[in-house]
This record gives sequence, C-alpha cells and structure tokens, in this order.
Amino acid sequence: MRPYRQYDRQELLQEQQILQRKYREYQGLGLKLNMARGKPGSEQLALSMPMLDVLDSASDCKDAGGVDARNYGELLGLSEARKLFADYMGVAPDETIVVGSSSLTFMYDCMARAMLTGVLGSEKPWSRYDEIKFICPVPGYDRHFTICEFLGIRMIPVTLTEWGPDMDAVRELIKDESVKGIWCVPKYTNPYGGCYSDEAVRALAEMRPAAKDFRIFWDNAYAVHYVYRDVPVLNLLQACKEAGCPDRAYMFGSTSKITFPGAGVAFFAASEANVRFTEKQIACQAISWDKMNMLRHVRFLKSPENIRALMDRHAAILRPKFDAVLNTLERELGGREAGSWVRPDGGYFVTFIAPKGCAARIHALCKEAGVTMTPPGATHPYHDDPDDAFLRIAPSYPSPDELAKAMDIFTLAARMACVEKLLEETR
Amino acid sequence: MRPYRQYDRQELLQEQQILQRKYREYQGLGLKLNMARGKPGSEQLALSMPMLDVLDSASDCKDAGGVDARNYGELLGLSEARKLFADYMGVAPDETIVVGSSSLTFMYDCMARAMLTGVLGSEKPWSRYDEIKFICPVPGYDRHFTICEFLGIRMIPVTLTEWGPDMDAVRELIKDESVKGIWCVPKYTNPYGGCYSDEAVRALAEMRPAAKDFRIFWDNAYAVHYVYRDVPVLNLLQACKEAGCPDRAYMFGSTSKITFPGAGVAFFAASEANVRFTEKQIACQAISWDKMNMLRHVRFLKSPENIRALMDRHAAILRPKFDAVLNTLERELGGREAGSWVRPDGGYFVTFIAPKGCAARIHALCKEAGVTMTPPGATHPYHDDPDDAFLRIAPSYPSPDELAKAMDIFTLAARMACVEKLLEETR
Repeated sequence: MRPYRQYDRQELLQEQQILQRKYREYQGLGLKLNMARGKPGSEQLALSMPMLDVLDSASDCKDAGGVDARNYGELLGLSEARKLFADYMGVAPDETIVVGSSSLTFMYDCMARAMLTGVLGSEKPWSRYDEIKFICPVPGYDRHFTICEFLGIRMIPVTLTEWGPDMDAVRELIKDESVKGIWCVPKYTNPYGGCYSDEAVRALAEMRPAAKDFRIFWDNAYAVHYVYRDVPVLNLLQACKEAGCPDRAYMFGSTSKITFPGAGVAFFAASEANVRFTEKQIACQAISWDKMNMLRHVRFLKSPENIRALMDRHAAILRPKFDAVLNTLERELGGREAGSWVRPDGGYFVTFIAPKGCAARIHALCKEAGVTMTPPGATHPYHDDPDDAFLRIAPSYPSPDELAKAMDIFTLAARMACVEKLLEETR
Repeated sequence: MRPYRQYDRQELLQEQQILQRKYREYQGLGLKLNMARGKPGSEQLALSMPMLDVLDSASDCKDAGGVDARNYGELLGLSEARKLFADYMGVAPDETIVVGSSSLTFMYDCMARAMLTGVLGSEKPWSRYDEIKFICPVPGYDRHFTICEFLGIRMIPVTLTEWGPDMDAVRELIKDESVKGIWCVPKYTNPYGGCYSDEAVRALAEMRPAAKDFRIFWDNAYAVHYVYRDVPVLNLLQACKEAGCPDRAYMFGSTSKITFPGAGVAFFAASEANVRFTEKQIACQAISWDKMNMLRHVRFLKSPENIRALMDRHAAILRPKFDAVLNTLERELGGREAGSWVRPDGGYFVTFIAPKGCAARIHALCKEAGVTMTPPGATHPYHDDPDDAFLRIAPSYPSPDELAKAMDIFTLAARMACVEKLLEETR
C-alpha cells in the first residue's frame, strides 16, 4: 500500500468517496461498541470466582500469626498479605503496606497528605508553596493527571518513548525546586505499552533534583500483566537504594486486574523510613483496612508463582483481543502512513498516534458510527494534546469479534481523517 | 455506704491500708485484662459468619440493575447498597454514597478535601485560612480529635451533657467565622453513652453560624447499636432541611459493628447537592469502591428490619458485659462518691468520671495490676482533660468473667485514688 501523502488530489477525492460509502454502511448498522474501558472482560473475571469459596462460614479467619481478620487492627495489613505482596513488588515486608481496594485511591491519598503535611524530609506542606509541579510523561494515564489537577499541582509534560521518559528533559526540569515529583507507569505503560529500560530506571534513581523531597510515583499497575511477553523492569526501590536516595521511590500496585477490579487489594512499597512515616500519617485516617479481603486474596493467590500462573490465563484471554486490534491496524493502515502505533508486550492498551490534527476527528467519526473511544486529549495533562494525535485503544472488555468490527470502523475513521487532512492541505 | 469525703483522716488511713492489701493480692495474680478496645468480641463476630456464604464461585455477582459487582464502575456505590443504607440512615438513595470499609476514613477524607479545596459553598479551601476551628464536645472520640490535629484544625472543647452539647457555648462559638464545624456522635455517644435530645438536634440545625460553609460531622456510629433500649434520635438531615440549611449535615455510618470491623461497608449521607459535589471530588480519588463487599452485605443484611434482628443478637451478647461493668461500679462505688458514671442505653462505652485529678492515677494503678484502660485524656482534644477526670471503659471485647475481674480492680483503683486524694487534701 502507498502512503496517502503520495496520493494526488484526484486520488484522494476518489479514496474519500470509497471510504465515505463504507462509513455510511457501518452507520446504517446501528452498532454500539466500546473500546474506551480498560477493564477486564467477564471471561477474565471468571478466573477469580474460586476466590469466593476460600472464605465461608466454616472458615478460620485467623492468619498464621493468630490475628483475627474479622476485627480491627494491623494498620499496615495482615502480615501474610504484606509478605505476599512484598514478594510481588520485589521488596521486604517491612517495606510494604497493604491498604484498601484501590491503588489509585492510595496514590491520591499520598499526594493529598504530601499537600497537607509534606512527605518525609519536606520543609513544609507542599500546599504551602506558591506552586508545585509534577513531571508527567505523555502519553500518560488520565487519572494521574486528574489527581494533580484536583490538588492544584502544575503538570509539566515530557515526551515518553517506548523505553521511558525523555531523561534530558527530566534532568532539565528537576533543576527547579518546585518540581516535586514525576508520575511513572514503568511496565506496559498506560497507554503507550512500552517498558522502562534499565537505563531509564537508573537515570531516575541517580538524578539529583533540586527538591530534596522529590518523589517518583511509580504506578506499577501491570507488573505481571503480560500479553505477549514478560518484560523485566528494574526494581526502582533497589535502584534508589543503590543511588543513595531510598526515600525517592513510592511504588504502587493492586490486584484489580489480577482478581476483581475495585474489589481487590492495593499495596504500597517504599523504604522502611517512608513506611514508618506513612504509618504514622495513615494512623490518623484509618483503624485498619479490609483484612478479610486480604485473607481471601492470600489464600487464593498463595504465591508469586501462582499469581504468574493466573496471569498466563489472563494473557491467553487477552491475546486474541490484542491480535484483533493490532492485525486490523496492520492490515488497514500499514503502509498508508495514516497513523502509527506501538505493539505492546502487555498491559491494557494500544496507543494510536494519528497524523497531527486528526485524533479528535477520528474520535468523532467513531462515535457517529457507534464506536466509543477514550476522548482525545485524555493522554495529556489538562486534556491538552498539542498535536491532537494520541488516541487510546482498550481491547480488554469487548469480545474479539466486537473488537474486529470496532477496529474496522476505527481504521476506516483514521483513513478518512487522514485523507480529509491531506485534502485540506492540498486545497 | 458513706461518701469518702465524710471520712476523717484516721478512717481514710485505715481504708487505704485495706485497699492496698487487696490491690497487692490482685497484683500477685499476674492478670492481663483489657478494657481499652471498643471492638466486638468473637461471639459477636460469629453472628456474621453466614455472610461469607452469600457469595461463592457459583454466585451471580450482578445486582438488580445488572451491574457486575466484580468490575469497575458505580462510584457512588451499588444501587441496592445505596438503597439499603439510605433506609438505614433515614435518607433517600440520592442522598447517600456507599464507600469503602471505614466511615472514619471517609470522615478524614471529607475533612482533608475541605482543607484542600473547601466544601460546597466555601469561598476558599479551609487550609487557606490562617486558622480554622472545630467544636469538639467533650468527652468525645479520640480519633475525631486526631483527624483535626493531623490537619492542623484548632479544636475547641465544649461540655457534652447526656442530652447533647452545651448549646449556649456552641452558639457563642459559632459567631467566629473561622469556626467551620462540630463533631457529633449523636446516639450512645462515644464515650458518654447519652443520646442527643430532639431539642439538641433542632438547635444544631437552627443555629446561624458566621461561617456559611459550616458543617456538622455527624458520626452516627451506633445508630442501631442498643444494649438496653433503642433511643430514637432525630434525623439531622431532615432537621437541617426544615431549618433551611440542608447542606450543613454530613452524616456517616458503617457496618463495622454490625458485621465485621474494618471489613464492613461505610456510607455517607447528605443533601443531594452535597452528594453531587462530593461525587465530583471523589471522582478524582477513586474509580469505584469494593462493590463485592457491598453485594455481600446487601444479600446478608437484606433490610433495616433484618439489621435490627441482628442487632438484637448483638445486644444479647453485650448486655451481660455492660451489666458486669455497671453492677460492679454500683456495688463498689455507689454512695462512696469516689466517681460517677453514665448508664448508657447502648453503644460501646461507659464513661467514668473520677474525682478531679484522679483519672491518671486510676489508669496507672490499673496498669500496674494488669488491666489496660484507654489512656486518660483520650476523651479530650490534645489529650488535655483539664480536670484529669474522664476515663473510658470498653466492655465489648472481654468476657463477662474477665470484665467482672477487671472491674473489681478498676473500682479498687478508683477507691484508692480517691482516698489518696482526700489524704493529700487533709494533710
């Protein structure tokens, strides 16, 4: 296939007619397809249904240490849960807190507490500065940006590559002492799909920010969530220890996409000093988190090896869905230069990079043909994608058949938008 | 029995010798008893074990509206849960949010968000004032005070009677527009045991604070937790609506002492405007709360009537424990004027009011004889009980036998402290 930009005006008009005819056919079908939601499908949820049999009315609800999971206590989490998720995160149990059911909520909490009182080593609460800033690699996760926006933290975008953020830009930005941190999704990044290289992780650990209380918010949401290939990513806490700044790393994870979204357990990993500091703070906001759900998870998930076996089954369900997306992109757009994409090894998303100025138009065309996509701009702070180029595709929830249909429409929309743009430019 | 203060010095010295001999006997027993923890005993926990059978691997996890509780969504809570707990709180489902597993955490959250951004109608975030203040009826719940202390909110104590706070003092304080709210435990107050009278609730609704964004944090932790008698308490939201200030009420509750502490569900009730405002805010901190636990609770608890039937069984377990405490107090201290107490109709605590300057001494004497009590001062902001008089007794966790023994020691300690004090005064 030839790139569209090699088409002359006549060819473009002809192509436009063909595409529009097809598009009207799709519109006539009255479809309702959704590629916006990064949530597991029901086949995946079924994998964890046996977890519901783990605790019943005859169960002993005490953990190995004799703690009754049904009652108050153990603010840092049931010790068996701390052990399991410490192993999962590659840290020691004393470097872990197992909290509620949402890592996002705990990220918000950590940021809110930093604003209200500061983090370990802060001279004053972050809210007492005229302005503080966070570095946001883009494309990134909209809910990270929402937290910053809600709390009035200025966001500064830096380019994310497949191997991590543009570290030259990061190193420049951290000379400003009002830059207090950076958001990272290190593995199968949301939505880019890449994984941070060892160099990127080490560079983040070794850089010397002007702010002494700089924090890396390391949202390791997809630590074991491979689809095609498990890609090892360096342990940030370890790297920070080696670089002499163990307190820089705030690592987060959850079982939302291992067991049940929103009804799993979430955990936090950081230096022992950070954990002790955080313990004192969360003692002001909680007596204890849901230890029954921790017990349920520990008895169901058992070990990191067993978690991996479960993730193999998730991957087997997700693979045909990712195939449907990637194959359709390749088949319909390959060679046309009507957009590019990253082939992720895992995670929950495929990022589509449209020709400049085309993302909003593709989104609108999809919508009018019954295909819901994440809104354009969601990948950027303040919903501001200056190139109007990035779109996030979420293949996990629809069936492979629905996805194939939705991707037919998506790629058609991408072609239409590209042709329209070129026609505008040749006018 | 004669009041100790009618004893002459000789009689006091004689009494002291007798008491000290008894005390040394108790010390020799090497007891380890705990009356500090306001947590249910294991017999109570057993009542909710059938809840664990409600969801198993064969269960349909969809609610009546077809929402899959296993997946993301429904930020305000599963609709059936909103309905049940709205009924429980005496409000409409649209006036309710069902959140995580802890009402305390949501109270903290509401206060933290008020500090960070303000509440509905705030001119600016509360943290932007030089100082804001909260009214704290005393004796009160230490964890409310901890939230304020953590967030730097100045606490002003007012006297709590059996029927509610001293409203003359409250009405005086609210002339100051930096006074932004008041903490209340309206029913079987922690630790006082009294219940707010209709007049007190109406007075709180009808008062006119200088701060337009004044909030009543109404921690209705013991709404159905009677021990001897269910005492009706007026619905604050209703009273605020009638007084033309529906947004003043922030009501909180949870099933921590209905099902499992820390592993139940928590809920928030307020005006629809407050709920809509709060929804927008919590959308920045959560995708959804644990709906599986909501579903479990809804299917187990079923209806307010069924909750009441469950609470009858809790009361039957708690009653002999409260009896043990109250009977020992009456038997050992009645007529001696070595302290007073409130006979609660329900809740989790008995407040003991020692003669001035005796609480810390009683606590220490108990400790040295193996009886752990909540530290003195815990009932007051900044741990400052100016009279050194208040002690909180928590009868729920030990067995009636253990309680009887612990109360023997407690009342002995109270008598010793009182006699010591009188001897000092007659020196």
